[in-house]
This record gives sequence, structure tokens and C-alpha cells, in this order.
Amino acid sequence: EEVQGSKLGNKRVRIVRENNPAFQHITRGVLEATPATEQPDGGALAHVGYGIKWALIGHPIPSTQDAQERLTKFKALAVLSSDAISSVAYATEAILVNLIAAGSQHLSVAFPISLVIIALMAIVGISYRQTIPAYPNGGGSYIVASSNLGMWPGLVAAAALLIDYVLNVAVSVAAGVHNLVALFSGLSHYVVLIDILLVIFITVVNLRGIRESGTFFAIPTHFFIVTAFIMIIVGVIKAFVVGHQPLIGHFAYAQELEPLSFFLILRAFATGCSAMTGVEAISNGVPAFKKPEARNAKITLTWMMGILMALFFGITVLTMTFHVAPNSSGSPTLIALVAQQVFTGPLVFMYPVFLIATLGILTLSAETSYSDFPRLASLLARDRFLPSQFALRGERLAFSVGIVCLALLAILLLVVFGGDTNKLINLFAIGVFISFTLSQCGMVMHWWRLRGQNRHWSYSMAINGVGALTTALVALIVSTTKFVEGAWIVLLMIPLLVFLFHGIHSHYRHFEAAKTTDIPANPQKIRHRLIVPISHLDRAAIQSIAYARSISPEVTAVHVSLNDEESQQIQDSWNTWQHEHLSEEEATHLLIIESPYRALLNPLLAYIDTLQKRHPGDTITVILPEFVVAHWWEYFLHNQVALRLKARLFFRPGIVVANVPQHLMDRPLKKKALYG
Amino acid sequence: EEVQGSKLGNKRVRIVRENNPAFQHITRGVLEATPATEQPDGGALAHVGYGIKWALIGHPIPSTQDAQERLTKFKALAVLSSDAISSVAYATEAILVNLIAAGSQHLSVAFPISLVIIALMAIVGISYRQTIPAYPNGGGSYIVASSNLGMWPGLVAAAALLIDYVLNVAVSVAAGVHNLVALFSGLSHYVVLIDILLVIFITVVNLRGIRESGTFFAIPTHFFIVTAFIMIIVGVIKAFVVGHQPLIGHFAYAQELEPLSFFLILRAFATGCSAMTGVEAISNGVPAFKKPEARNAKITLTWMMGILMALFFGITVLTMTFHVAPNSSGSPTLIALVAQQVFTGPLVFMYPVFLIATLGILTLSAETSYSDFPRLASLLARDRFLPSQFALRGERLAFSVGIVCLALLAILLLVVFGGDTNKLINLFAIGVFISFTLSQCGMVMHWWRLRGQNRHWSYSMAINGVGALTTALVALIVSTTKFVEGAWIVLLMIPLLVFLFHGIHSHYRHFEAAKTTDIPANPQKIRHRLIVPISHLDRAAIQSIAYARSISPEVTAVHVSLNDEESQQIQDSWNTWQHEHLSEEEATHLLIIESPYRALLNPLLAYIDTLQKRHPGDTITVILPEFVVAHWWEYFLHNQVALRLKARLFFRPGIVVANVPQHLMDRPLKKKALYG
Repeated sequence: EEVQGSKLGNKRVRIVRENNPAFQHITRGVLEATPATEQPDGGALAHVGYGIKWALIGHPIPSTQDAQERLTKFKALAVLSSDAISSVAYATEAILVNLIAAGSQHLSVAFPISLVIIALMAIVGISYRQTIPAYPNGGGSYIVASSNLGMWPGLVAAAALLIDYVLNVAVSVAAGVHNLVALFSGLSHYVVLIDILLVIFITVVNLRGIRESGTFFAIPTHFFIVTAFIMIIVGVIKAFVVGHQPLIGHFAYAQELEPLSFFLILRAFATGCSAMTGVEAISNGVPAFKKPEARNAKITLTWMMGILMALFFGITVLTMTFHVAPNSSGSPTLIALVAQQVFTGPLVFMYPVFLIATLGILTLSAETSYSDFPRLASLLARDRFLPSQFALRGERLAFSVGIVCLALLAILLLVVFGGDTNKLINLFAIGVFISFTLSQCGMVMHWWRLRGQNRHWSYSMAINGVGALTTALVALIVSTTKFVEGAWIVLLMIPLLVFLFHGIHSHYRHFEAAKTTDIPANPQKIRHRLIVPISHLDRAAIQSIAYARSISPEVTAVHVSLNDEESQQIQDSWNTWQHEHLSEEEATHLLIIESPYRALLNPLLAYIDTLQKRHPGDTITVILPEFVVAHWWEYFLHNQVALRLKARLFFRPGIVVANVPQHLMDRPLKKKALYG
Repeated sequence: EEVQGSKLGNKRVRIVRENNPAFQHITRGVLEATPATEQPDGGALAHVGYGIKWALIGHPIPSTQDAQERLTKFKALAVLSSDAISSVAYATEAILVNLIAAGSQHLSVAFPISLVIIALMAIVGISYRQTIPAYPNGGGSYIVASSNLGMWPGLVAAAALLIDYVLNVAVSVAAGVHNLVALFSGLSHYVVLIDILLVIFITVVNLRGIRESGTFFAIPTHFFIVTAFIMIIVGVIKAFVVGHQPLIGHFAYAQELEPLSFFLILRAFATGCSAMTGVEAISNGVPAFKKPEARNAKITLTWMMGILMALFFGITVLTMTFHVAPNSSGSPTLIALVAQQVFTGPLVFMYPVFLIATLGILTLSAETSYSDFPRLASLLARDRFLPSQFALRGERLAFSVGIVCLALLAILLLVVFGGDTNKLINLFAIGVFISFTLSQCGMVMHWWRLRGQNRHWSYSMAINGVGALTTALVALIVSTTKFVEGAWIVLLMIPLLVFLFHGIHSHYRHFEAAKTTDIPANPQKIRHRLIVPISHLDRAAIQSIAYARSISPEVTAVHVSLNDEESQQIQDSWNTWQHEHLSEEEATHLLIIESPYRALLNPLLAYIDTLQKRHPGDTITVILPEFVVAHWWEYFLHNQVALRLKARLFFRPGIVVANVPQHLMDRPLKKKALYG
């Protein structure tokens, strides 16, 4: 039954009956849409479209299920640490490749460098452990920098991170496909195509929602972690328990090309710091964890940093002990050579298994970007620095717009760079260190502000201060050493993005201010004046005129005529209609505008202008009769005058445009709807 | 001063004052738009845009100047015969290339073959001379075939001709650029680009109107005709007056590859018939001539056929006399070799002049297509076989849509075939002979019908009958010999086009019938029911509600809410507004629909559906509050919900959608327009 209140205050309409499948009645004036509203209402094609969409993405998830969609610690470790942990596969090699320029006798310097990086990891890890409880709603660099240092540093951190996330997807997919093509050389012509298909695949899995993608991507990450630990344990037993080898072995001779300068050591250190990309993913992704979010995130971060340091240390030790030098061609990789040394005899079957695990985690380290890019974009959208669409959760509670945007940008990069890892890698890692630096500077400010309330503030500030200085130095070194090779692109993009954010922000602020100020609380009566452009005196025209006259008697029908015969014809049929069927008070003006230049729109617009100038106080409504045809392609067969008129009128202030659609052909004609 | 009649019949509004620059007052209720309505009303950018357009295309020409825009016989000869006359540059060579397969001793067979073709030209020419007075409004194959043989043969003729016109543009432009690239080999990498630029150039010239393009293209055609006649006269004097050479000389020895079969002779004849493409252009283009159109067209056709036969005969005679055999590589061309023989001694300067003239007419023979394709398309559009846009004359009285459509199709062909003449030529000339055959069959029927009234009917019918048989034979031979090389594409395209024409025709017929039947002469009162979807209670929402209430008190504001806080917030601000500012009879319902799946559109559409089912007799109007922002890119910053809602509602019968635009920012806010 229907309740239709008539008193102010409790006057809200309840339009649905109890048995309406589309809505549930909540309270007076409040309905809730049911899943029935999500059913397609079109023809068979629409049903097929929805079917495909549901097969790919899944059925919609209601907002109330948000908590169930969160990540367990086990899945979060897989999703949010794949980027960081995958970097142990190449970090040691990156250090050695730099040092070998000074000849093989100095390769042992890699060991102290690695220890410094591990110390740095510990500092950054401890720092982020401090950030998580301080910012339980997500403490990425953007949040920490903007709330402690101000808007501009926050935006710089955000821009740097967004760029790095896109690069991470492109680089990891390209690296994965590169390894795949090495196995199946027949695919080498289709590298970019396979890249794109892989990006689309990862995108679709992510659009299914964070829980499902977590389940899917947990396997490769944990598989790599397990196999890598097996390698390290077996290797350590072989080297020190069975073999009694020295910690640092004798490397094969390599010619010295330059002296071991301090700069070379710094560069080796800076390159090795690529092991630290992805470290901030967990502190940024706190809201994705199951409750209690902050505690779970902190534990997961500790796990991740522990695993990262242990793997990095273990692989460096094995490299040193087995004196494995990097191959100048880059293939096989250092980690493959180490695995070859370790997995001998009865364990030889583990060698290909480990290689496949490495391939898997390298490819799927893109997942960290898929988790964090949309979340960071949603924070920026929430703060009005990106279009508001980025803040809306899609049907599966994922930030669909951000996911699709990331995928499109990554595909663009892959196409522009032809899927070439070597070119892409030069743009990589700068953004991460800039955002590290800003985030840690922000934490320094944070502790300084809390100096009255927290007794450990000086200790914490010191940790973050050391971290800030070190990461700033790394950012500087990475930017300088890779500047010509491509770092300049990133350093140019960051300010451009920041200005874009700021421009969007200004627009929204301006817009909000303009639409909420100067609201007339009590609007006066509207004086209507209606124009009905007609091409023929057909059913649509007559219905539109009837509609217009039901609003006000001030109706003018306007016909733009291309020649005299046309003018005469419409005038005659108009007169016949008016005289024979209508009473005197139902009579309507017809204005014929002859257009000697055969333009249809411009004379009509000039007439509307004239009318507006003559009657500045009136509200002009243009009623457009439109025939709705059965198929989209049939629109090409009719002059798009109505559509073009609407587009032109949209930019003129104070004119209301109403469409009176007249359906033809295979749909039932709802005459009653207009002539009840 | 303004006259506002109040009586029916003479009740028409005169809205403009005498000093309004946009309109001229014609009679009561009839205005005429002045050129002032064609002025751009946008910003500087719009003015620049119009400036460029006018510089390229020219100022609009009023419809009344139609007669002045017609072609004189001199210009018509240039525009309409460039295709036909340009073919003498390659027709003789085409015959010899076929015959040389039988060895050089049989090359002399080319002479009788040429005589047969000239006789055929005479037959076709006389036939078309008969067609012009019979069909003074344009007697192309489409008209003649459809009015004598019925719709289907007419459509086949039209499809065949349209295909050939497009091919002619592609082939002639490609051939011209091919010759140009031979001169400047550095351009060879940019063939397709130059092709496209040339097509765009010819298109722009044609968009300036038929008279201006006639002036422009007259020069190359007449230049070629003059230089070709000079060559023939000089050559004949040299050969027969000075040199006393035999009519058919001794050709250089060429090895026999196959015997001189009847089929080979037929093939040589068929290929030589390419000289006849473009012959029907004049009879199709009668309406483009100055008055008296039919007489001028007939005279021009006689000239053209005379020139064509004289040049073809002359060039064949010179080829025979100077025993010039075609070069197997195709370069230099046969006509260049003939010119080399003729222009010796003091006349040697004429050799490059003649080559340039040939290059010019080959390139610009595209112009015939530009003249006839849009005209044929306009005839098809008039008969409702093509979209009606093709029948509208543009600002310069040219059929702009047809011209642009031809250009786009030709560019598509050039891109697909990479600007390769050899590939394109295989598709060429089939269409012309199919349409010749159908046209002449139509003329046979025409004479048969007139057999009581015309005493020459049997003679005329015989001419057309011979023509029909011969051209049918040629069409058959061309189709068979070139089938595998590409003729199949044309033979496949023709039925597809015919079905397209028929489909369009059915749609229009159905549409016209549906929109004019069942017109309710005297519409009843409309019962309004209005829905105002709102996102916030901002200025646009309040104005839209005021607008809705001015139509009917049956207004419901609907808000789709994504969460409880949002629901509470809008309900509170709504209650405040209603209680504090509005009287009881001004009160409006607010319905809140909670959307657990975060969809904004579907719950709203489901609500509208529900309302429509509950109140089938009412007219539902959805009032959409919309903010109009200052720059187009700013639309990306706002949810496109209103736009998507409009798109979805457009396909539902019986729902009127009205936009109440609210302008923001840098435009003055016309508050008065809504709150007078």
C-alpha cells in the first residue's frame, strides 16, 4: 500500500508497493535498491554484454560487505610485498655490475655495500612501522608529507609515486615477457602484444576486487619466498657446514676499467637501493587490511622487511661465497648462476623450479602497483586533486577507474617504448626515493610536533632523520647518474603532474563555491516562453506543441525553410490543422524563417537570441520534437539537426532544452503518455 | 515595431524590429535570415575557425544565385570531359600491350581495333545525344535505367557508377603522383601522403563550388587538348606530307608468346575501351549547365566526342606510322615515345611541354568524378536511397556531403592499396561498362515505348541496341579477364551497395509512414508528473525544482545515496530549506534511494519505470539540473551522470527530458532568466 503524506516535514512519497522487486522500503521517504535494478533491461545483446561482464568481473558486491573484502595478513603480504621482494632477484647483480668496472679484485666491496643497504632497509622499515599507527587510515608518502609538510610536498610525493607505479607495471610486465620470449623465441615478434594482453589479464583480475586478486596473486609470491629460502639454506649448509669455504671467495679475473672511486661505490649503492622499491606499499595500503587494520599492517610490514633483508643478505652471501661474477651479457642472470651452484646433484630439479618462481614474482610484482595506484588516486580524488570518479568504488568495491587508468598508462608506455625493459628501467626508482625522502621528512616534522607528548620523540626523529638524509642522497645520485638516459623525463613529469593536480583542485574549489553561494531560498514565479522548432507538421511536431502549450500559451512554432515551395507547403498544412481542429484559444503562432544560405541552425539560434534580448525576464524553453528510431545506425539517416541544436544551446545561459521523444516502428507507441 | 496578431489564421508573431540585423521581414509570419546569422558568436577561436573556413571555401552563396553558379560550355567541357579525354593518353598503349604477346607482326591489328572503338564511341555518343533531350534533368545511367527498366537495374547502375567514380579519383591521383615521383625521386617515401594531400586539395577546390572549380580545372584540360592537336597536326604533316611514309610502318621485332587468337583480339579491344570511361559524365551533369541546359549539354557532348575520337584516331595513326611499340617496362609511355618522334628539331621544346600537359590532365581527370559522384548521390538521396544529407547543397551550392564522402572513400582506397596504380587499375572500368549497358538497355525500352509517337524509333532503338550489346560484351570480357586480379571486389561490392540502398529506402519509407499516420488532430490535456534527480541541494537543484513546480505541483526530487551519512546530510538540508523558506503549498517531496551497489543510474531508472507503470496516463518529465562549466575539458572533472542518464532515457518511450543548465564561473549568471 502507498502512503502519500501531505504535511510538510513528514511529506515524503512512498512510491513502491511491497511487492516491487526493484526496491526495499527502509523508512518513510527512503528506499533501497535491490540487485533487481542491476539487471539489464535491453534486448538479447544487452543480456549477453552483462553476462560477459559478470563472467569476467563477477557479480556486484554491496557496500556493506566491505569488511569481508579486506585482505588477511597472508594475502596482503603477497599483494603488497611482491614488488619489494621481487627486487632481491636483481639487486645484488645491480651492485656487482657497477663494481666490476673497477676490476674483479674490488667485487668484495659489494658485501659492505649490501650491509649498508640492509641497515637502510631496517631504518626505513622501522620508520614505516612508526608511520602505520600514526596514520591508521593509510600513511603513504602523500598523506605523511601533505599533513606534515604542506600541500606542495604532498603533491610532489604523490606525483613521484604515481609515475613509479605506472613504470613498475610496465617494467615488470616487460621483464616477465622478456624472460618468456627467451624460452619461446617464436613469440619474439609479438612482444608488445603479449605485454598488452598480460596487462589486460592483470587488470581484469584486479577489477574482480582486492580479495580475489589477493587469492590469485598469493601463490607466486609465497612460492618464490619458499624456494628462495630453500636455496639460501641449502647454499649456506653447502658452503659453511659441508664445504668450509671462506665468506668472500676469489672472483674470476675481470679487467679494471676505472679506479674504485668513492663515486663508483656510491653508484653501486644507489643501484642496489632498487631493492627498496615497493617498501612503502604496506603503509599506504593499511585500509585494505582486515580489522584491526593498523596492527595487521604493522605485523605484515615486519614480516616483509624481515623476509626482504634475509633474502637480500642470503643471496649476497651466497654470491660472495661461490664467487659468482655477473655475466656481461646479463643472461643468465646472477641469481640463476647462484642457483646453478647451489642446486647440484640430487637437488638439480630445483634449478628450473627456482627459475620459474623468479619469473612469476618478477611478472606479478606489477600487482603492488595495482593495489596502491588506485588507492593513492582515490586519496587524491577525495582531496579534490583528481577527478572525483577516482574516489568511487566500482561494482566489486575496487577503485575501478584508477585500475583502468593505470592499465591504460602502462599500455601506453609499453607501446611507446616497444616493450623494451632496458629503456624503461632508466626512468624507474627515482620517484620512489623522492617520495621516501618527503615521507621521512614529514615524519621528522611529526616527531618534532609531538615532542611534548612522546618521550621517544628524539630517538624516532633521529631514525627518520637518518632515513631522510640517506634516501635524499640516493634520490640525488639516481637522478644524476641516470639523468641523460631518461631520468629527465620523470623529473619533468613530476612538476607537470603537480600543476595538473593543482589546476583540478582550483577548478573544484571554484565550482563548489560558485554552486553553493547565492542560492535564492524562495524562487519567484517563472514566466515561460516556449519555442518548438519543427521540420514538418508530423506527429512529433504536434505532440511537442501540445506539450509546450500545457506549460504556457506563449508558444511559437518555428520552421526554417530552404525555399519558397517548402514555406508555402508548411504554411498551408499549418493553416488547415489550426482552422479545422483547434479552437481559438488553442491556436499557436507559426514563424517561418527563410534561410537563403541553407543553414538550419544559425537562423534558429539568431531567433532565440533575439527573443532572449526582447524578453530578458522570461525563461525560454526550446521543445525539440525527436523521433526515436529502433536501431542506432538509423540515426545516420536523419539530419542531426536536433542534436547539433542541443549542443549549441547547451552553452547559452538561461535556456532550457526539452526533448519530446517520439518512438517509431518496433516499439509500442505510448500515445497515452502524451495524451492521457 | 512589433505586430502581434491575436486572430486565428493571421495570427503570426513578428518578433524582430526593423533594425534587427539578423532578419529581414518578408511577409506576416515570414522572416528571412541575413548573412549576419552566419557570423560566429563564439570567442576568438571561433572567429579564427570561421576565417580559415572562409579563406578555404569562400563566403556562403545564397540559393537564388544558383543560375549564376552554372557552367558555361567551355568550363563544362573541361570539368566533365577530363576523365574521357585523359584516357587517350593510355588507350592506344593498352591495346598494343595486349597484342604484342602475339609478336610484333600483329601489332597492325591495333588499327582496325581502334576503328571499331571509334565506331563504338560514335554509337555511344549518338546514344547519349538522344538521352540528353529525353532526360533534361540529368540522364545518367541511374535515371535512364530506373525509369525504363525499374528500380533494381537503376540501383545496379548507380552502384557500379559510384564505385567507378571513387576508383577514378584514386587511380588518377595515384597515376599523377606516380609521374611526379618519377621526376623527383626523393619523394618516393611519401607517395601515400602526397596522394592524400592532393585529394584534400582537389576536395577543397570543389567545396568552393562548381563554378570556381570549373575555372580552376579548365586550364589543364584545354592545355592538353591544344598540345595534343598540335602534336597530331605536326606529326601528320611530317609523316604524310613531308615524309611520304606508309600508314602502318614496320614495328621492331618482338618475340611471339602466344598465337593471335580471337580472344586476344577481344581482350585488346576490351582494354582499349578504357578510352570510354567518363563518356556518360555530360549526360549525367545536365543540370550543372547554364540555361538552356539540354542544348548546351548536347553541344558539349558533341564537342567532347569529336575531340575524343579525333585525338584517339590521330594518336593511333601516329603510333602506326612511326611504328612505335610499347615499352615493356611501361616507361617512357607510348604517348611520350610518339611525342619524341614528332617534336624534333626546332620543335623539341614542345616535348616536355606535352609531357607536362599529359601529367596535368591525368591527375585532374579526378575532377569528373568530383562533379558526378555528388550529383548522382544527391539523386539517390532525393529518391531516398541514400541519407538525405547527400541531397542538401552546402554553403557554396555544392553537394558538400557527397564531395567529402568521395574524398574519404578515395583516401581509404589509396591507403589500403598503398597508392599503387597497378593494383587499383584492375578494379577499374567494370562499373562504367555495366552502367553503359543498363543505360542503353533503358534507352532501347524508351524507344520501344515511344514507337507510336516517334517515327525514327526503330533507327534510334537499333543504335542503342547495338551499343547495349557491345558494351555488355565489353563488360563481360573486362570482368572475366580481370576477375582474379580484383574485378571480383567490384562485382561483390555492387550487390552489397544495392542492398544498402534498398535498406535505406525501406527505413525511410517505414519512417515517413509511421510519422504521418495516426496524428491526433486535437490533443487532450496533458497530466504532468515531474522528477528532479539531485545530487546536492545546490543552486542548480533549487532552480530545477522551481522550474518543475512551475509546470505542475506533482514534483518529486530524487536523490540516490551511496551511504547513510550522505542520506542523513541531504535529508537534513532538505528539511531546513523546506521548513524555513517555503510555504506549505510550495513543499516538494524528496525521495532518497539508497544504492548498496554504488550504481547511480540503475536505481533512478528503476524508479522512473515504477512511476511509469503506476501512472500510465501521465507524461513523465525528468528535469536534469546541469552545471555548465566554462571550458570543455572541465567536463571530465564532473561525473557524467546527467549525460549518461539522458542517453539511457532517450530510448524509453513517453519520457520527456529537460535540461535546466546552470552556468558557472566566467559567464554572467542569468538569475533573472529563471527568477524573473
